Amino acid sequence: MDFLSDNAAGVHPAVLEAVANAAGPVPQGYDSDPWSAELDGAFSALFGTPVRAFTVPTGTAANALALAALVPPWGGILAHAEAHIEVDEAGAVAFYTHGASHILVAGPAGKLDAAGLEAALARRRGDVHQVQPAALALSNATECGTVYTPDELARLGRWAKARGLALHVDGARFANAVAFLGCAPADLSWRAGVDTLAFGCIKNGGMSAEALLVFDPALAATIPVRRKRAGLMAPKGRFAAAQLLALIRGGLWLQNARAANAGAQALAAAAPARLLHPVEANEVFLRLDAAERAQLRAQGFQFHDWELAGPDAARFVVRWDQAPGTIAALADALVALP
Amino acid sequence: MDFLSDNAAGVHPAVLEAVANAAGPVPQGYDSDPWSAELDGAFSALFGTPVRAFTVPTGTAANALALAALVPPWGGILAHAEAHIEVDEAGAVAFYTHGASHILVAGPAGKLDAAGLEAALARRRGDVHQVQPAALALSNATECGTVYTPDELARLGRWAKARGLALHVDGARFANAVAFLGCAPADLSWRAGVDTLAFGCIKNGGMSAEALLVFDPALAATIPVRRKRAGLMAPKGRFAAAQLLALIRGGLWLQNARAANAGAQALAAAAPARLLHPVEANEVFLRLDAAERAQLRAQGFQFHDWELAGPDAARFVVRWDQAPGTIAALADALVALP
Amino acid sequence: MDFLSDNAAGVHPAVLEAVANAAGPVPQGYDSDPWSAELDGAFSALFGTPVRAFTVPTGTAANALALAALVPPWGGILAHAEAHIEVDEAGAVAFYTHGASHILVAGPAGKLDAAGLEAALARRRGDVHQVQPAALALSNATECGTVYTPDELARLGRWAKARGLALHVDGARFANAVAFLGCAPADLSWRAGVDTLAFGCIKNGGMSAEALLVFDPALAATIPVRRKRAGLMAPKGRFAAAQLLALIRGGLWLQNARAANAGAQALAAAAPARLLHPVEANEVFLRLDAAERAQLRAQGFQFHDWELAGPDAARFVVRWDQAPGTIAALADALVALP
Amino acid sequence: MDFLSDNAAGVHPAVLEAVANAAGPVPQGYDSDPWSAELDGAFSALFGTPVRAFTVPTGTAANALALAALVPPWGGILAHAEAHIEVDEAGAVAFYTHGASHILVAGPAGKLDAAGLEAALARRRGDVHQVQPAALALSNATECGTVYTPDELARLGRWAKARGLALHVDGARFANAVAFLGCAPADLSWRAGVDTLAFGCIKNGGMSAEALLVFDPALAATIPVRRKRAGLMAPKGRFAAAQLLALIRGGLWLQNARAANAGAQALAAAAPARLLHPVEANEVFLRLDAAERAQLRAQGFQFHDWELAGPDAARFVVRWDQAPGTIAALADALVALP
Repeated sequence: MDFLSDNAAGVHPAVLEAVANAAGPVPQGYDSDPWSAELDGAFSALFGTPVRAFTVPTGTAANALALAALVPPWGGILAHAEAHIEVDEAGAVAFYTHGASHILVAGPAGKLDAAGLEAALARRRGDVHQVQPAALALSNATECGTVYTPDELARLGRWAKARGLALHVDGARFANAVAFLGCAPADLSWRAGVDTLAFGCIKNGGMSAEALLVFDPALAATIPVRRKRAGLMAPKGRFAAAQLLALIRGGLWLQNARAANAGAQALAAAAPARLLHPVEANEVFLRLDAAERAQLRAQGFQFHDWELAGPDAARFVVRWDQAPGTIAALADALVALP
Repeated sequence: MDFLSDNAAGVHPAVLEAVANAAGPVPQGYDSDPWSAELDGAFSALFGTPVRAFTVPTGTAANALALAALVPPWGGILAHAEAHIEVDEAGAVAFYTHGASHILVAGPAGKLDAAGLEAALARRRGDVHQVQPAALALSNATECGTVYTPDELARLGRWAKARGLALHVDGARFANAVAFLGCAPADLSWRAGVDTLAFGCIKNGGMSAEALLVFDPALAATIPVRRKRAGLMAPKGRFAAAQLLALIRGGLWLQNARAANAGAQALAAAAPARLLHPVEANEVFLRLDAAERAQLRAQGFQFHDWELAGPDAARFVVRWDQAPGTIAALADALVALP
Repeated sequence: MDFLSDNAAGVHPAVLEAVANAAGPVPQGYDSDPWSAELDGAFSALFGTPVRAFTVPTGTAANALALAALVPPWGGILAHAEAHIEVDEAGAVAFYTHGASHILVAGPAGKLDAAGLEAALARRRGDVHQVQPAALALSNATECGTVYTPDELARLGRWAKARGLALHVDGARFANAVAFLGCAPADLSWRAGVDTLAFGCIKNGGMSAEALLVFDPALAATIPVRRKRAGLMAPKGRFAAAQLLALIRGGLWLQNARAANAGAQALAAAAPARLLHPVEANEVFLRLDAAERAQLRAQGFQFHDWELAGPDAARFVVRWDQAPGTIAALADALVALP
Repeated sequence: MDFLSDNAAGVHPAVLEAVANAAGPVPQGYDSDPWSAELDGAFSALFGTPVRAFTVPTGTAANALALAALVPPWGGILAHAEAHIEVDEAGAVAFYTHGASHILVAGPAGKLDAAGLEAALARRRGDVHQVQPAALALSNATECGTVYTPDELARLGRWAKARGLALHVDGARFANAVAFLGCAPADLSWRAGVDTLAFGCIKNGGMSAEALLVFDPALAATIPVRRKRAGLMAPKGRFAAAQLLALIRGGLWLQNARAANAGAQALAAAAPARLLHPVEANEVFLRLDAAERAQLRAQGFQFHDWELAGPDAARFVVRWDQAPGTIAALADALVALP
């Protein structure tokens, strides 16, 4: 009964079928295939604006590639202290940007607000001796399983633009955010001032591809050569494109996210007093001491201790294909804790 | 009738089936799955020595990651002037190594020999003002469709070791080389002094994964974090591992390579006087003037002009799944050229 | 009446004379001159242990070069949140290390202690997804004008070694620290576990050179080529070496530092209630509101507001050649503030 | 009797005096001093156009910094196969550009022409798989002691501009080129389409500073932060500026270069049949076999074997302050060779 990671989830049958349908030979390799040719159009339709979409093998690559296009080597990236790019990507952003650094800002429940960002900037000078803030990077859903609303995001977008900062969103769980809010994808992206979005697929029923979406064509100019040079440009690009098309066409991406979110809500309802953060996506952070964690594990539940949130914290991630019985079992076990 | 690239080939049904078999959920993501766990062992068995195997999404990534582990930022990499890392990877090696440069050496039919390498080194000093040669990088099969024999390779391996140079082999078409020679994989790798091998899968019936093989465990130490930091570490690593296992188990990799090689031999036999290089793998380089190329294209054949070999050169690549009728048609067309 | 920076100080006549004495031609350029040849020996004598000394044009270069030799591109450098490498070097460490990042830790008066460092490490995992802590970097004297004692430093050195971390000291004002403590240079360096030391010269009577000192010969192996490759290796290295020799021979470096420290003490004595930090070197940080700062400036005093310490803070730096009358005038002005 | 390198030359008394005159304290550090403030104006006057001038400690830094501003990390730099940036800077350009590579082109006497460059480009495609040519980098005077005339340079400048390439000139011996031609500095720079010029000072009577000149203000935008971040921004910038001002004011730079050039002419006249290249600056390349070189060395002459030009080649560099008697002695010795 695994609640360790949505990276452990299965691949949705429709994705698998799409991959199988692309298995025959095509005239040319790389992105010169019918599936890749449809990608920009499909994402443009989904977001209601012209979008350039680039497939990459990981979310880490999507985030780092986007920030490399937005930030010079001497730039600073404002980010939450618990941001994935800071905590879990082994310095990928510094690698791809050739040395840009994170300017970390704290904020409750994984979220940043303009006041906190403003305070961080107030301690900095604009002179040549300092790293120059160049972008704001957020996760939505956040690393704490919470979600920025369109209004919150638009406020941050305006704040960023007013200071000449680009805005990138790590959307490894973008689907969960949109599913939670019931808003349009546009409301959590370009309409709110987002320049680039790492659009998650793998955690949400995909297999081996994510999409980096760029809402301003000028920003996309250097991405093809950056992607090639980083060894991220798939020789058989059709398999990446086919996965993404299968997910976004017909709304499968939202259907999967809704399933995962619902499981998280069920867990939250079982342990309301233990919640470290509001549950708005598919992650549940609970206050659980060592004995309680041991007891759950003894019952067969797997999950991560969450040292970032202190010694008595644990994270449970619900997958899109989590068996309902497993969720119910964990909910019962949480209720039954002394 | 496409002879443009083996990246356009289909995915072998056994690979597709292996991917489908891995589609269900697993307890953990990344490389913590049964398929990934078998990878080192499977390659160790194939090569008859302990091997560390790392899946990556492209051959460019495999080459660059390997060379980054072998060469410091101020290092020089001896390579053929037409090497893939020089000509077709958009500077990936410089990116991953943080600035190492290529020391280009010419050689007939895409091959290097010790005399040519020695002459290149003779023009260099060892002092701090110069890029310091640190590795020799070869392709086998080469970019000209020829193959280094075990003896030739071992001679280069000894030459490299005697000068303190590491030896990397770009094996995007390693299967074609082994199939042509009928030797053991070991003969074209560690037995000949090879430190790291980019083991091709995608061109040879795979879908989206290559393997970087490391024959010295000490050299592998930094590769996991380099791979993660480059955004190359697949969240669902089982799909990459499953592809490779499907290919190497039961000899499918050699069966596919033999099919492609045989097609190339058929083409070579049809135009012996036009061959720019011996045909030893699945690529055929022909002397064809503009009118001849136009005539072939008018007959429906697709292929690349090959400017590296001069104005009257063309490259034909035979895929593992090339339809026999297509090959016969091209052979006939070549024979029929005036 | 300038208290802005010790980079504005003059060059000591003995340094100027040493430069003039080196002005004639020599047989060879770069470091192949008698002055450069004496450098290792002179520093080894000063520190009582074999030292490798490399001249560089700036303290930023010394810090970044040292950390590049100590930390891999995916490494983390534990540093005080107000460290010069974080605040005032425009990302030089990330540039030279090819992407290492700072793990910032707070601490009173610009100083770190083991408890704070331990807490920072406790929030991190050692796995491949994270930046790997590789070094601890301190300033001594600190950026707050305080000084680590030999005991404090040795405690941090032991802590670092126990965790496999290298220890670098930014000694832009190392002379001021040694002068304040009256200890041996060894006590604030290798005896306390320091691996590399940026030994300041320019702020302390020098002109255009600092020294990077390396206490472990193995660590020095890559520095010559790194220094060359960064454009830091002076074509006429004798002028850099001559400056350093002039300062350290005969104790001029300590004499200059004592003069600067004494001036700072005089200022501290004039405004004890305003001190933000103990005054132990040549910098004085005072609580001064906007009106008070304006009044001092109207009287002709120049100094920096110090936003890092809040809205009502100012920094006064006393140079080695600060005119005593100027110091007295400022002291009087501070006393006279309402 | 040293003919090893002009980096071994002395410092001109006027430069030394200028340094001494700058020795007193100033209100602020870095470039906030009267000497630095005059630098742009002085170079603008010398070149007859608005110039942005940045002091750096080495020519390597000047070249690498300039090319970093002109070329993206995936860019290619067309350069002569014997260019200093390729042969003698330990990969500095790759370091500063974050991975740009050199596209080497041969040419007689160290010079490139449009035909050779065009042929190099003809072998390249413009697609995303290749390093993209972005700049042409020349040395003038060249590494072979020859000089591009204004016409030759302007032709290359037009060629570069027509292909969207920037043009950088390594002018470590720019003074020698201008002195040889008797032309205006403008004729060998912006008038010929040069974007950036590394203006040599150290070999020509200076001590520790070169100037990077930028003729297009837009190109200069990122250089200040790049210079700081690389540890190249002198804390006491006045000493670098003072050296350059002393050299260019009153024509001292040309006077020194003329002296060095004249010495080289005297040597050339003594051994016309041995010249490997025309002598147009202060370097003389001679055909001398091992016995002849040994004989000269036995007579007390020091010089470098020049392996780049083959086994029987040697380089003699004449310094601005080379004693006339030494030059005469070498000329006599050359004449006396059997």
